[in-house]
Amino acid sequence: MLPSGLRVVTERMPGSHTFNLGFFAAVGSRWETERLHGASHFLEHVLFKGTKRRTPEQISAEIEAVGGELNAYTAKEHTCFYARVLARDADLAIDVLADMITSSTLRSAEIESERAVILDEIAMHADDPGEVAHELIAGELLAGSGLGKPVIGSPDSIRALRRDQILGYWRRRYTPERLVVSASGRVDHDRLVARLAEYESLTAPREPSGSRSLSLSKSKPESPNAGDPLVITKARRFEQSTVVLARPGPGLFDPDRFPIGLLSIIVGGGMASRLFVEVRERRGLTYGIEAGETSYSDAGLWSVDWQCAPDRVPEILILVRQCLADIAEHGVTPDELARAKGQMRGQTVLSFEGPQSRMSRIGVAELLGDTRSVSDLLADYDAVTGEDVRRIASDLLGRRQVLAVVGPTPGLRALRRALA
Amino acid sequence: MLPSGLRVVTERMPGSHTFNLGFFAAVGSRWETERLHGASHFLEHVLFKGTKRRTPEQISAEIEAVGGELNAYTAKEHTCFYARVLARDADLAIDVLADMITSSTLRSAEIESERAVILDEIAMHADDPGEVAHELIAGELLAGSGLGKPVIGSPDSIRALRRDQILGYWRRRYTPERLVVSASGRVDHDRLVARLAEYESLTAPREPSGSRSLSLSKSKPESPNAGDPLVITKARRFEQSTVVLARPGPGLFDPDRFPIGLLSIIVGGGMASRLFVEVRERRGLTYGIEAGETSYSDAGLWSVDWQCAPDRVPEILILVRQCLADIAEHGVTPDELARAKGQMRGQTVLSFEGPQSRMSRIGVAELLGDTRSVSDLLADYDAVTGEDVRRIASDLLGRRQVLAVVGPTPGLRALRRALA
Repeated sequence: MLPSGLRVVTERMPGSHTFNLGFFAAVGSRWETERLHGASHFLEHVLFKGTKRRTPEQISAEIEAVGGELNAYTAKEHTCFYARVLARDADLAIDVLADMITSSTLRSAEIESERAVILDEIAMHADDPGEVAHELIAGELLAGSGLGKPVIGSPDSIRALRRDQILGYWRRRYTPERLVVSASGRVDHDRLVARLAEYESLTAPREPSGSRSLSLSKSKPESPNAGDPLVITKARRFEQSTVVLARPGPGLFDPDRFPIGLLSIIVGGGMASRLFVEVRERRGLTYGIEAGETSYSDAGLWSVDWQCAPDRVPEILILVRQCLADIAEHGVTPDELARAKGQMRGQTVLSFEGPQSRMSRIGVAELLGDTRSVSDLLADYDAVTGEDVRRIASDLLGRRQVLAVVGPTPGLRALRRALA
Repeated sequence: MLPSGLRVVTERMPGSHTFNLGFFAAVGSRWETERLHGASHFLEHVLFKGTKRRTPEQISAEIEAVGGELNAYTAKEHTCFYARVLARDADLAIDVLADMITSSTLRSAEIESERAVILDEIAMHADDPGEVAHELIAGELLAGSGLGKPVIGSPDSIRALRRDQILGYWRRRYTPERLVVSASGRVDHDRLVARLAEYESLTAPREPSGSRSLSLSKSKPESPNAGDPLVITKARRFEQSTVVLARPGPGLFDPDRFPIGLLSIIVGGGMASRLFVEVRERRGLTYGIEAGETSYSDAGLWSVDWQCAPDRVPEILILVRQCLADIAEHGVTPDELARAKGQMRGQTVLSFEGPQSRMSRIGVAELLGDTRSVSDLLADYDAVTGEDVRRIASDLLGRRQVLAVVGPTPGLRALRRALA
């Protein structure tokens, strides 16, 4: 960590010829107030639109001229700007990203043109039934913080955001103690730190009064066991219903994350999973069905997703409940558990292999404080017992259900009966 | 090379934990007769559908159980089946792929269900105006071999293909001397060869009468300078016209490939390219415009692509010609050339970095006989002079133009005038 609070993490990879750099900021919808809803993502767009030293075209053209890649994304708990170049162009990548993060001009004309782009993006998202269904679920199960709101904002919030609000948000949130710089591939840690030192606002020592650590405004998920099932429907003119059935799940630091990850694989993690075999192979009710957990730093959810003809939704809901109930009562077989661990191991190692995914992994991990290594994570999955999986299935059964159906919708009564 | 003619190429990469395996077959639309049009791609689908030892579900489930990936694609000159797994699961990946390639059952029921899937795929492709435009171009400029035909086949050819035709095609084309097995990552060459030896049909010595080398049925592109510009239009109900303007270009083994690659970057390879600056930045006629070469083993083409309002097509056509004419007359600047080389170097190295892309690169290279290393390729690009680029622009100007416009179409007369 530098005196400013900026954290720099690197991983040198033998044989790599590339330099993969990311700036990770603790900026995302979870910290947005009502009035600032969508500001994190809006700001991400605008930071590409010119600095004191570079026009918007120069930002892209300088990376392009060396055959590199430059991009960014905004998630609920973090924003990432990243570049990938040959090792010999490392200084250029550092300069372009640091320039964008510290010295953007946020010109009004650029803000207006990006506002139009984002309103188009919102319209596109609204056409994606899976995304709509997941946002409906998040709005219920992660209510109480910005985790329950779409990263992209709403048409109203995007239309209302003024330049001075975006500028203020940038100045308050992109401070050194809320930033992690991550690099991997052919990387020289000391040289990276020396280059970053040229940006005073990144590396100047903090004011003594400044808060050192990232203060998470805790999200306040409702009591997990509260109330009756909630059914949310959104009528759309599609052929198929898109369905997400969810319950509260563990956050990133909850040890339940490990048994629930294996439960997801056993219940709906591919072609050998219980639900795939029962719902698709035996009964032909749907083309596919999947289960999975979504974990944030202090909240999460567990969901089962599928698309099907509207009149098949209740039957599948009953099968999902039976599947969980069977595991809660009888547990899983040793074969199932071993297979789930093998699948998790392969997926995890494969997904973190390349220098770009390593850069991303160590950057997010440092930012959120989840600094376990991949082998630590794998050891935690390996330690899960059949009883752990049985117990988490039983826990889930006792938690509140939220069902979202987008597209043609069967009768509410049939849905409620299937969930009861 | 094994006694059977099977070639095995591997690249061990330090630090890798994965085993990346590909079977590359000299099978694609270029070798299909009229009656077999689409057979390569149809066969690729069917080889996933069960072997003597595995049901279709087992094929996918066995790779999935170790968290791996299994997929395939068919191109005009080759078909590739590939898997990515942890190094400890290498034997499984070898067995699954070799089993599919050598011992599929091609059951009639599976052929019929894949026929329906492919007919759907054809309908989807027909909705993509860029793909339609490029196929119209290929149908003209690469006529005389299957390179001029869509890999996926036509609705008529797919409906007409019988099981015995697909079976015969498989037996004739998936022979050891037409196959390359490629692996990279944490790979043991000798162990791979030993495992492959368990499949007699892959590794048994060839019959003495067998033809050893891959015989390319030469494509016969028309004389490059022949005739007037050809205009092909396809009316579709879109807002924008999709336009591809093409001329004959170099094949993979033609040294013109290097100057034309740099010309593509200078003319239309990103935001600093001449056409992007002129057509989009200065005149705002389109959202983007790109130039690029497509090279097969003995034929190729060079094209400029964009989408625009229909009434803007003629103006952009004139700008494209002026751009080439200006380079043919005045050449390119040293800065432009240096920038193009830097961009090419970065793109090339970045695109071949990961173990999976290395596996793919060495497999295709061995299959087509294009075994230059990445550093050899980069040296060839570096050796290109400004005069080389000027000369290739001048050559292109003298070659026959084919224009495809899909979507709303301006008057043919205006198009012909703009091309003259």
